[in-house]
Amino acid sequence: MPWTVPVIAAPCAVTLSDALERQAQLTKPPGSLGLLEELAVRLAAMQGCIRPSLDRVTISLFAADHGVAEEGVSAFPQSVTREMLRNFVRGGAAISVLARRIDADLEVVDVGVIEHEHQSSDSAGIVSARAGNGTANFTLRPAMSDEQLVRALTAGSEAVERARAASAQLFIGGEMGIANTTSASALACALLHADPRILTGPGTGLNAEKVRHKRAVIEAGLMRHSGHGDDPLEILRCLGGFEIAALSGAYLHAASSSIPVLVDGFIAGVAALLAVRLQPACADWLLFAHRSAEPGHRVVLEALQARPILDMDMRLGEGSGAALAVPLLRSACAIHSDMATFSEAGISSA
Amino acid sequence: MPWTVPVIAAPCAVTLSDALERQAQLTKPPGSLGLLEELAVRLAAMQGCIRPSLDRVTISLFAADHGVAEEGVSAFPQSVTREMLRNFVRGGAAISVLARRIDADLEVVDVGVIEHEHQSSDSAGIVSARAGNGTANFTLRPAMSDEQLVRALTAGSEAVERARAASAQLFIGGEMGIANTTSASALACALLHADPRILTGPGTGLNAEKVRHKRAVIEAGLMRHSGHGDDPLEILRCLGGFEIAALSGAYLHAASSSIPVLVDGFIAGVAALLAVRLQPACADWLLFAHRSAEPGHRVVLEALQARPILDMDMRLGEGSGAALAVPLLRSACAIHSDMATFSEAGISSA
Repeated sequence: MPWTVPVIAAPCAVTLSDALERQAQLTKPPGSLGLLEELAVRLAAMQGCIRPSLDRVTISLFAADHGVAEEGVSAFPQSVTREMLRNFVRGGAAISVLARRIDADLEVVDVGVIEHEHQSSDSAGIVSARAGNGTANFTLRPAMSDEQLVRALTAGSEAVERARAASAQLFIGGEMGIANTTSASALACALLHADPRILTGPGTGLNAEKVRHKRAVIEAGLMRHSGHGDDPLEILRCLGGFEIAALSGAYLHAASSSIPVLVDGFIAGVAALLAVRLQPACADWLLFAHRSAEPGHRVVLEALQARPILDMDMRLGEGSGAALAVPLLRSACAIHSDMATFSEAGISSA
Repeated sequence: MPWTVPVIAAPCAVTLSDALERQAQLTKPPGSLGLLEELAVRLAAMQGCIRPSLDRVTISLFAADHGVAEEGVSAFPQSVTREMLRNFVRGGAAISVLARRIDADLEVVDVGVIEHEHQSSDSAGIVSARAGNGTANFTLRPAMSDEQLVRALTAGSEAVERARAASAQLFIGGEMGIANTTSASALACALLHADPRILTGPGTGLNAEKVRHKRAVIEAGLMRHSGHGDDPLEILRCLGGFEIAALSGAYLHAASSSIPVLVDGFIAGVAALLAVRLQPACADWLLFAHRSAEPGHRVVLEALQARPILDMDMRLGEGSGAALAVPLLRSACAIHSDMATFSEAGISSA
């Protein structure tokens, strides 16, 4: 395939050390700002700047449909994916509201939302980077072809190129696609050799009986593609979604472009796991916004050795948890940059 | 004593019901924004307004010294309380930076920081509401007199009066006082009949041996005042700090003035526990910003049946955790107020 895993450098070790030294001099007991200290110091190292800042944030929201939706694995009809595209662009969705609040650029990318012939496809304000007209039903065949996989991964790296052109200091990827927790759970099971019983959850709101059905669908998909081995790209091709592949491609390209990434919830977390499996050096560029209420997320975060910033029982996707966490990162940067040191303030230290 | 527990009304049940109905119509799966939904709906009920807002936030930071500091229970010398007062006013402390970020009014209130005769007391920008020149060492005698207790409680209600005059939509209380985790732990033990072993922690950074010493100091204080019964005001008078009493007084007065309160960490949590013990109706007006790294906080939050918004291993005080959580509350309000409903957006529901 004409897609190569990008080379990724480590964040700047010298800046990391300088930033740690600055933290130790600020007028507070050492360590008393907990995770905020770690976040500021890591961002400093990623930005190669002892006083990091996050004025310019880009959110790329990737939307696509899933063939496996025909198995009845979602509480919502498939048409909602396209309906929500319009809602994102018109400003009525949760991510639209949150993007405005944090003054972030929000772009909506269609990587494969189903178009019906009779439908008027109102695409104003939507970036078209379609890898197909929805994926195939993975219980019957691979979700996508080799070519579609490359197109979807490339849709992600192209989004990061636009973010880079806009001098983004932080990249957030969002996702929307009816049935995409089914795809994400299947991917996580295959990558982690984990039991679908612990990785299948209610998604947008299934009851216990429908979660059992969803699990059976995931098991059928895993069984069908079990002969394909452990190659993350092949797992992604067989069980993935276009928007999940786009997220993985975006994370890898952001890391190779030295742009810090703030990973959203469960589905974004699975995309991050794929990215790290493809290129372990990617992990140093990822911050994790929140722990989703979707039960599989805990397992994925553990596999990534990630400590999320927030834990608020959210399970919406769209990048909403990441957008919500941006003010916390900005506060971490402001404290790190603007607090007085003990000597500046003339305060006795411990 | 000439201090009476204020009367507190419940938040508006009609607005609560209207706000819950609005949440159910927004373009997202029901419940998918987790705690954000509950926060928005509770703020709506407290403000009596279906679309709540938090444009005007007041932070009152109460500082005082503790006689028990002479027992060697802090990693920092007592002089740091006064030194930090200046740092707050000059804008170099963590809370100064955070208050600027959230565009909150920050006032610094001296409720009893020690003044030495030879010291020049630079009080520019500091509200003086002194209940004494530091509390007494509670291992030897009650921390304060009846009159001092009333003065400290009143310092809190006066701060809320100023917040109300400024039309504050949210009240945050911060605290500063070397040795005040010792006082807060002793208060929590007395109020909850809890073992000092689970309620004593490192505060600003004690090692294990010094934590054991701190626990012995707390045990000595509890022993000395054990004959005073279960009256929360008497417990506060014997073991408390002026800034803790001011916080309790402020919370009660804010609730009786229908101003929502965002409670900070461990010490503020103990003040909230005192307020709720004095007037259980206060609880409906309290939101909890974060779970502190100080181990006793978990016990206090459980006693209050409180679910904090953040859990970031912070243990600074000053109101820093509460200020950090304000953007999350504002996001909760914005989502609740500005998202499209299913019918507005023409989206199929589940």
